[in-house]
Amino acid sequence: MTLSPEAVSPAELVNRCRVLSERVAQHNRRMKADEQALGSEIDTAYRELRSQIESSRDSGTGEDEGLEQLLLAKKIYEGQGPGGDLRIMSSTTKKTPIMLKYLLGKETAGVLIRFDQRLKLKQEYFKFRHAAALIFTIVPLILGFGLRRATQMEAMGEQGSLSPPLWVATQAYAAWLVYFYVSLALRENILVMNGSDIRAWWIHHHYIMVLFTLVLMTLPTESKAFKIFSEKFIFFNVLQGLIMMFQNKYQSRRLYRQIALGRNKTMDVVSTESSPGKGHLLVLYPALFAMQALQFAVAIDAILYSANDFFSEVGWLDNVPSSTDLRSSRGVFVCGVLFMILALGNLLSTLATIFSKAKK
Amino acid sequence: MTLSPEAVSPAELVNRCRVLSERVAQHNRRMKADEQALGSEIDTAYRELRSQIESSRDSGTGEDEGLEQLLLAKKIYEGQGPGGDLRIMSSTTKKTPIMLKYLLGKETAGVLIRFDQRLKLKQEYFKFRHAAALIFTIVPLILGFGLRRATQMEAMGEQGSLSPPLWVATQAYAAWLVYFYVSLALRENILVMNGSDIRAWWIHHHYIMVLFTLVLMTLPTESKAFKIFSEKFIFFNVLQGLIMMFQNKYQSRRLYRQIALGRNKTMDVVSTESSPGKGHLLVLYPALFAMQALQFAVAIDAILYSANDFFSEVGWLDNVPSSTDLRSSRGVFVCGVLFMILALGNLLSTLATIFSKAKK
Ligand SMILES: CC(C)(COP(=O)(O)OP(=O)(O)OC[C@H]1O[C@@H](n2cnc3c(N)ncnc32)[C@H](O)[C@@H]1OP(=O)(O)O)[C@@H](O)C(=O)NCCC(=O)NCCS
Ligand SMILES: CC(C)(COP(=O)(O)OP(=O)(O)OC[C@H]1O[C@@H](n2cnc3c(N)ncnc32)[C@H](O)[C@@H]1OP(=O)(O)O)[C@@H](O)C(=O)NCCC(=O)NCCS
Repeated sequence: MTLSPEAVSPAELVNRCRVLSERVAQHNRRMKADEQALGSEIDTAYRELRSQIESSRDSGTGEDEGLEQLLLAKKIYEGQGPGGDLRIMSSTTKKTPIMLKYLLGKETAGVLIRFDQRLKLKQEYFKFRHAAALIFTIVPLILGFGLRRATQMEAMGEQGSLSPPLWVATQAYAAWLVYFYVSLALRENILVMNGSDIRAWWIHHHYIMVLFTLVLMTLPTESKAFKIFSEKFIFFNVLQGLIMMFQNKYQSRRLYRQIALGRNKTMDVVSTESSPGKGHLLVLYPALFAMQALQFAVAIDAILYSANDFFSEVGWLDNVPSSTDLRSSRGVFVCGVLFMILALGNLLSTLATIFSKAKK
Repeated sequence: MTLSPEAVSPAELVNRCRVLSERVAQHNRRMKADEQALGSEIDTAYRELRSQIESSRDSGTGEDEGLEQLLLAKKIYEGQGPGGDLRIMSSTTKKTPIMLKYLLGKETAGVLIRFDQRLKLKQEYFKFRHAAALIFTIVPLILGFGLRRATQMEAMGEQGSLSPPLWVATQAYAAWLVYFYVSLALRENILVMNGSDIRAWWIHHHYIMVLFTLVLMTLPTESKAFKIFSEKFIFFNVLQGLIMMFQNKYQSRRLYRQIALGRNKTMDVVSTESSPGKGHLLVLYPALFAMQALQFAVAIDAILYSANDFFSEVGWLDNVPSSTDLRSSRGVFVCGVLFMILALGNLLSTLATIFSKAKK
């Protein structure tokens, strides 16, 4: 083997790799030690802080200056300092969300995003939601009109209704919905682990939607009960997509405002003084309530349609011919109940959000 | 507010939080700088190493000592040094697997596990596979016998066949399969990002299985084509579960052997000298081939059963009554084709593994 004069020899290369490996090991050790030391100091400071805030609130004297200082300390702890949200470093508050535990495992799920990546994470999350909202609006719009046209043509006995490919497409769309809600829930869980204040319900909402969509997918597309319910669901999706776009716009604008204000805690609930998009909210809240009312109506409709079938005694233990539509009717009942839970949960969470914003 | 003499004052607490926040910021900056510096040095060393290995192989002279040294350097680079697998630190080789990009997003997916957590990650992965293999064996066994009993009872016109709850349970099992394969693929992708040499096919296998299971879920359970195919699939699962347990045992034993040998690179392909479980492999290979042959047979069966229906012209653009069984037969055809792809891919990958092990 010939070496050009400036090249390193193989022995030197071995050495270089050894040194690099040792340095990596050192880096890993130091990082871990640093993180542990910082973590336990942060925990101690926080315990002290919490107990002082509590006792100060309990005593409830007019002497507010101490409390004000304590609240300032809390703000720094929660992310207004140069180090961002210190809770992330804490060794005690780290609890792995259940979904991450089941899908990724505890070990991976414990991983925290590096501070400088957290903002990007949130931006990416909004980008994902924005793209999804487009699909949410356009695909069901096409499916809905296609299916309506097919029903009309079939009623008139015409050919070329395209209903088989449309139903396959509807099921593919349902599969996409499963992907969408799983991914959304994963991303939100990761955001929560990194300091976001997303209300638990919005994540539970996605879990219920996954279950709902899977039940919907198992129902035979030929059945009458399924047809009636799924057409309503499809049009509901169009509306939801439109509102989601609006919600995205409001929330991502809020994020950019926070960045512009030089806030270090990107995952913060914005307090009133700096809250942009109050106007947005004035449109968003009524739209959300209207959507929830509609969702509730669709749910009640499905439940009333199928309750008789669901509570009848036949077909639980023995097969009934599929022409009775019993099985799909029961599936629709389950979907209706899940939809009702979603409508109520969304309503309560939106109300809770309004109240907590008003309190600030 | 009264303070006990030893308590810190609110102002001190504010200060403590400020200092901690500044230290966290410093820690983050240093970590990032260190990682970048190490990463680029590692990349330079590796480029040098690779070009020397190539030119040494090309020249092909008998002078093997240099080459041996180079290969030693490569081993250190790939994880035999104290720093573990240096590739993980490299800034260039990091490519986010597509599944992680779509489910978690680029920003999260870029996250690497800390070195001391990587071993735990792999152990957890085996634990997950082990638990899943149990479900894989037991649940389909119960379902399979239950469904067989139901078919017999229905043929004889008896009551209490329990077939409706059994079919619902089968669909719930299918939903569990979707979860299992998604989680497995996620975990394996994360292992790959952290230096594991898992062959890409095993991960693609899981993607195809997700698609397969989703198609299966959309088929009406009353249909004859579905019944015939799914009963075979259920019994195939039992066999697969048993083999998976055996495979787990072999692979996790290999992992513990590696740990016992004090290897730093836990994600390594074991080279022959330290390879335990050669005996295991002598049982495992024939079992795998047998399973692949069976999978192929099930696939061919499904394809032959449904090919006529699939290629007939009716029912693509217009609805046909569900009594024709056309839709499910076509679904079974798709499942059959996917199953065949899986059988072939598994066979080829197993052969490739055998060859690459023989070469070492
Ligand atoms: C009411 C609403 C507009 C308030 O939004 P907001 O002003 O961002 O609410 P908050 O200030 O309480 O937000 C706290 C955190 O939760 C997040 N968040 C709020 N609502 C969320 C939702 N529905 N999904 C995901 N994250 C949400 C915010 O982004 C913020 O995150 P951060 O801590 O990382 O900055 C919003 O919650 C909403 O649109 N809810 C209705 C959603 C709905 O009904 N969906 C039905 C299906 S689409
Ligand atoms: C053939 C077989 C026993 C070889 O296993 P092995 O000795 O671990 O194979 P290799 O040495 O090539 O392994 C390289 C890496 O891939 C991993 N790996 C190998 N086969 C794998 C598989 N089927 N799934 C996941 N990971 C696998 C190993 O754990 C190892 O990981 P590491 O780099 O983190 O240590 C194994 O690949 C196998 O069982 N394959 C058949 C699987 C099959 O047909 N499944 C059908 C559905 S269950």
